[in-house]
Amino acid sequence: MATALKDQLAHDMDAMGRRARAVAAVLATAPRILKDEALRAAAQAMRAQLPGIMAANHEDLAAGRAKGLTAAMLDRLTLDERRIEGIAASLEAIAELGDPVGQEIARWQRPNGLDIARVRTPLGVIGVIYESRPNVTADAGGLCLKAGNAVILRGGSESAYSTRAIHACLVEGLETAGLPADAIQLVATTDRAAVGHMLEMAEHIDVIVPRGGRSLIERVQAEARMPVFAHLDGLCHVYLHEAADPAMARAIAVNAKIRRTGVCGAMETLLCDASVAATLLPSILEDLLAAGCEVRGDAGVQVLDSRVVAACEADWRTEYLDAILAIKLVNGLEDAIAHIEAYGSHHTDSIVTMDAAAAAAFLARVDSAIVMHNASTQFADGGEFGMGAEIGISTGRMHARGPVGVEQLTSFKYLVRGTGQTRPG
Amino acid sequence: MATALKDQLAHDMDAMGRRARAVAAVLATAPRILKDEALRAAAQAMRAQLPGIMAANHEDLAAGRAKGLTAAMLDRLTLDERRIEGIAASLEAIAELGDPVGQEIARWQRPNGLDIARVRTPLGVIGVIYESRPNVTADAGGLCLKAGNAVILRGGSESAYSTRAIHACLVEGLETAGLPADAIQLVATTDRAAVGHMLEMAEHIDVIVPRGGRSLIERVQAEARMPVFAHLDGLCHVYLHEAADPAMARAIAVNAKIRRTGVCGAMETLLCDASVAATLLPSILEDLLAAGCEVRGDAGVQVLDSRVVAACEADWRTEYLDAILAIKLVNGLEDAIAHIEAYGSHHTDSIVTMDAAAAAAFLARVDSAIVMHNASTQFADGGEFGMGAEIGISTGRMHARGPVGVEQLTSFKYLVRGTGQTRPG
Repeated sequence: MATALKDQLAHDMDAMGRRARAVAAVLATAPRILKDEALRAAAQAMRAQLPGIMAANHEDLAAGRAKGLTAAMLDRLTLDERRIEGIAASLEAIAELGDPVGQEIARWQRPNGLDIARVRTPLGVIGVIYESRPNVTADAGGLCLKAGNAVILRGGSESAYSTRAIHACLVEGLETAGLPADAIQLVATTDRAAVGHMLEMAEHIDVIVPRGGRSLIERVQAEARMPVFAHLDGLCHVYLHEAADPAMARAIAVNAKIRRTGVCGAMETLLCDASVAATLLPSILEDLLAAGCEVRGDAGVQVLDSRVVAACEADWRTEYLDAILAIKLVNGLEDAIAHIEAYGSHHTDSIVTMDAAAAAAFLARVDSAIVMHNASTQFADGGEFGMGAEIGISTGRMHARGPVGVEQLTSFKYLVRGTGQTRPG
Repeated sequence: MATALKDQLAHDMDAMGRRARAVAAVLATAPRILKDEALRAAAQAMRAQLPGIMAANHEDLAAGRAKGLTAAMLDRLTLDERRIEGIAASLEAIAELGDPVGQEIARWQRPNGLDIARVRTPLGVIGVIYESRPNVTADAGGLCLKAGNAVILRGGSESAYSTRAIHACLVEGLETAGLPADAIQLVATTDRAAVGHMLEMAEHIDVIVPRGGRSLIERVQAEARMPVFAHLDGLCHVYLHEAADPAMARAIAVNAKIRRTGVCGAMETLLCDASVAATLLPSILEDLLAAGCEVRGDAGVQVLDSRVVAACEADWRTEYLDAILAIKLVNGLEDAIAHIEAYGSHHTDSIVTMDAAAAAAFLARVDSAIVMHNASTQFADGGEFGMGAEIGISTGRMHARGPVGVEQLTSFKYLVRGTGQTRPG
């Protein structure tokens, strides 16, 4: 019996993959006007179905409370009128984005008259595996559709009812526009084995995008037979160089830590040149401690404020995702870059300095997806980059690096236009 | 004893990987002038070492004859003065290419004043596994160096002496320029187990590029734990549309098949609209048959020339890489596209037509790395695309698609330049 159920799941997942692959060819050449109509109709459906979505969300919340989810988890799970309107508006924002498919990335002529263009094409089929945030359903579905990809969504069991309700609106949008409903499929079962099947379906799924906690990302990176767009850690640094403007250093350091402590672009370690620590750090420590942030520092930081607790080696390696900050004094640019390369996660790192040469060296040499000068690491976000929505941030070096928006969900091909050229020799 | 040797190999390969990773950081910021100096000095070293390289090549050829290699294999293996000069000149041509590292791919400003640039960075460490052509040693080593990557080369055992001699010249070039010799490492052992180790070294090797026959590519694609830039097949089509110019159709079809039959861009299947078969095909068949090409066709083609043998289903799936061509009659654009999608390998496909709408539809809808209009598929080559040298052609959809030149051997990062911006909300 257990085996029969297992076979049934494998069969269902495979069938889902085949349907996705089959519609991918339709989506690849779907005109922009239809994709945008589907997105706008889905947004309208969400507004029309507001009571139904709220009711579904109440079921998830009730189950979540019964399961003893934390307040933070319940908050992530909660949909209210404002959040639902936000999700609908983001579908409309995706409709406003330019269509990446067919976009010319480069074009040049050869001496023999051949005209060569590099144009964007869809990637094919995207798999998205996420946890409790129901808005990912709409964002991921919308972005994949805009980029001409079919998508298979696998939401977390905690948000199963909400996810199904939002998915129904996306399907309604597709149907309104006359696009195949299989363009955005949702894995209906909450059986965890379904994730394992998705990760093995390299024939049907071209890329997997996991969204969620560390254990999900680790599992996906270890098991996926196809490329993965993800980041495991966001161990972001701000480095206060000796030529930093004190007011700017204070504003950036405090914002990078405190604005939101749970996002991947939040600063986790503050590096400060020892030569300016006594000038720069006291006001920053004041602000952080006043905001309820725990500060862990090396000996040089501890002497500046008695409330700083001793940092240990593990602190330089920890992504707190919380109101905790590790501070280390360094001896100049080389030392700072060496620390970031040794302990960082190649996500987002920022230097604060008025010294153009130091900034240029930092930007050139720090090998992270996003390297900043005089800006808060909290800007590490596709929306803030002007990409519209994002499906995640990648710290991989292949294909997509940094925020993953519609362009990163495309591949490309070469179009070679001739007038009868044949190749000599 | 066998186990001890196995452990020794694993240890040696791992040490090689660590050395590559260690020098990758040096190469990533190596100035263009040093990389180009190394390339030019290597070319000079090859000219200076001509007798030594020839002698090494003689050893390979003698061993190859003793092993009973085919004439074609021996030819691929043979180096003469002209070929060695060609290899040296291609190193100099790589030096002439622009430095991709640090190149701005895009740059834009945000309303809050943030300046965002997307700039190329090296990928890291490339592994290249190839068979008998000794020139791959120089091309792959040179391209990886130019793109700021460390590279681990694994040549075929048939060309072991020649490869070592060429590799020594590359190392001499690196040393002349003051760059680390470990930038271009060669796996010294001809033990086949070394390939298995390379494919598992995901920690030390970021991308694998296999160059060689189908069995090598299949093994690499199946076993590699890291991304692979490769194409398994080059089952390229030319489609003669009903609005094709007859003279152009003849020139392109004959060139696409006959110029070189053993390259991946050679046409393997010719599709022709049935409505124009009697007009277009006779002269093409004449040329092909006169050139010694075997022609296999469906019934409609066979009636045109008694020398055409019957094609079977397997012919539409076969990459002959030889003077054999399959010809099929189709009923218009839709039929041609459907055949290419069903049987092709997504490498290079070309339409011959004077009808702009048909060409546009073909270019938009055929999902191959290279899609051509009125040009011979034999132009599927990085050099012909103006990329300088190429390390191969990829039919994968991720990161690199089509010819893999220096740009495709890079990743990118975002540089965000601010004036103290912090993120609100």
